[in-house]
Amino acid sequence: MTGRTARRRVVRVTVPSDGFPGRAVARADLLATEEPLGIRVDGSALTVTMRTPGDDVELAAGFLVGEAVVRSRDDIAEIRLCDGTSCGHGGHDGMGNIADVLLAPGVEVGSGARRNFMTSACGVCGKTSIEDICVLSAASLESDKTQFSPPVLASLPDRLHQAQRVFARTGGLHAAGLFASSGELMVIREDVGRHNAVDKVIGYAMLRGRLPLAGCALLVSGRASFELVQKAVLAGIPLLAAVSAPSSLAADLAEEAGLTLAGFLRGPSMNVYTAAHRIPA
Amino acid sequence: MTGRTARRRVVRVTVPSDGFPGRAVARADLLATEEPLGIRVDGSALTVTMRTPGDDVELAAGFLVGEAVVRSRDDIAEIRLCDGTSCGHGGHDGMGNIADVLLAPGVEVGSGARRNFMTSACGVCGKTSIEDICVLSAASLESDKTQFSPPVLASLPDRLHQAQRVFARTGGLHAAGLFASSGELMVIREDVGRHNAVDKVIGYAMLRGRLPLAGCALLVSGRASFELVQKAVLAGIPLLAAVSAPSSLAADLAEEAGLTLAGFLRGPSMNVYTAAHRIPA
Repeated sequence: MTGRTARRRVVRVTVPSDGFPGRAVARADLLATEEPLGIRVDGSALTVTMRTPGDDVELAAGFLVGEAVVRSRDDIAEIRLCDGTSCGHGGHDGMGNIADVLLAPGVEVGSGARRNFMTSACGVCGKTSIEDICVLSAASLESDKTQFSPPVLASLPDRLHQAQRVFARTGGLHAAGLFASSGELMVIREDVGRHNAVDKVIGYAMLRGRLPLAGCALLVSGRASFELVQKAVLAGIPLLAAVSAPSSLAADLAEEAGLTLAGFLRGPSMNVYTAAHRIPA
Repeated sequence: MTGRTARRRVVRVTVPSDGFPGRAVARADLLATEEPLGIRVDGSALTVTMRTPGDDVELAAGFLVGEAVVRSRDDIAEIRLCDGTSCGHGGHDGMGNIADVLLAPGVEVGSGARRNFMTSACGVCGKTSIEDICVLSAASLESDKTQFSPPVLASLPDRLHQAQRVFARTGGLHAAGLFASSGELMVIREDVGRHNAVDKVIGYAMLRGRLPLAGCALLVSGRASFELVQKAVLAGIPLLAAVSAPSSLAADLAEEAGLTLAGFLRGPSMNVYTAAHRIPA
């Protein structure tokens, strides 16, 4: 089985300076593993995502929540990992690189969010994207009256970072963490793709029958895009926090959906872009 | 027309400390714009990418190079931006959110790299992904004997950063820069998506008849994924450098394709993962 990290030979090159010559030193290094995962739904290929292996059932489950294909554990009959050993590669890793999802009777892929993007009569624009997500969202976030204290929020990046085991070894992985309003870390997932890390977190909760994730905060490393806000909204999470900046459309969707979007969580301060009433200063 | 940045009201929250109370101050802030762009080829929807508006013709052109659909300017008859005004939104921004590509006679989408992923008989694995890209690559990078001096490479992140105009205003944008081996910046593009920034750079060169990009170095902010190595290989770029870590599959593909992959370009040093002969210490 492919692990979450891979060992590799690397040449560390240092530039000459102050009269010292340049150097090139070979050494072993650990890289975060990236492998494709195909997601099939009822026998049809839906997508291929490049992800860090591990928690792939959660990844497939969370992906389908974020695409508005499913809303709860009951919408899925089974998720099976297949290893595609029919390809005949001598060195095929034999691990599950395809997630085969069987939907429950009556549930269909047809109405997924991304599908709407591609078939929308007007082409594509931010407004229609936002309307699509808000229509597809099961529950309104407006009714979630949870409040999050600024000191607790400010402490989350450190808590996330301390829990990042693979990052510590490779220096190259995104993370997503789900927190209670008390600041308690409920689950963390790391992945080469920030969206995969979020899917794994949401899939973890979904498979345990925990959706919608009322009262929770989701923290992501890096930036907050439209796609991440979409995933949070469809999982019923009232607060999304990012270590870096959000995009314009991320803020627009958050506002429309009633999600609290915080960015630049660094040190003792943060920027709150939408629904600031959940963060009383 | 939607610009590359959008102004927004933000509440800056500061945590109480040392006896000082917490504060919440409202102010205006600039966010990097994110909007969907649909790419249609010969009338069929190929993909939707969330991107920062601007240079959309380059983005579509570069995307098709990175998917191995086209190899040179001659493979494209026309790229037109459509505004999809038929959707009837009063506030539709009226800008081109669809790129309509007409391929030259005889050129077809069928053989694109991502399509191979989805239809591969063995499902998906890193090995088949790498073989797909290497088969689809027009020219071997092995024949590109360009060398890059470590001091020049170490200077590139600063050059890229200084040229990042939108980042300076928003603090939240990825960038890709194409450099000559002398260190001269040939073109820089910024985008909410790192892959889009790379597509725009490669599309810029492709539309000027400059592919393959022999002798050039591509620098990206953040990490280096398989997808970015794929784009560099298919554009004939011999060196890809990243400010942060590469993934395992990025290094595997780079090795197989003969591309020099450098990571952690920070200060006076860097890690060289593959084809280190192009970086003589």
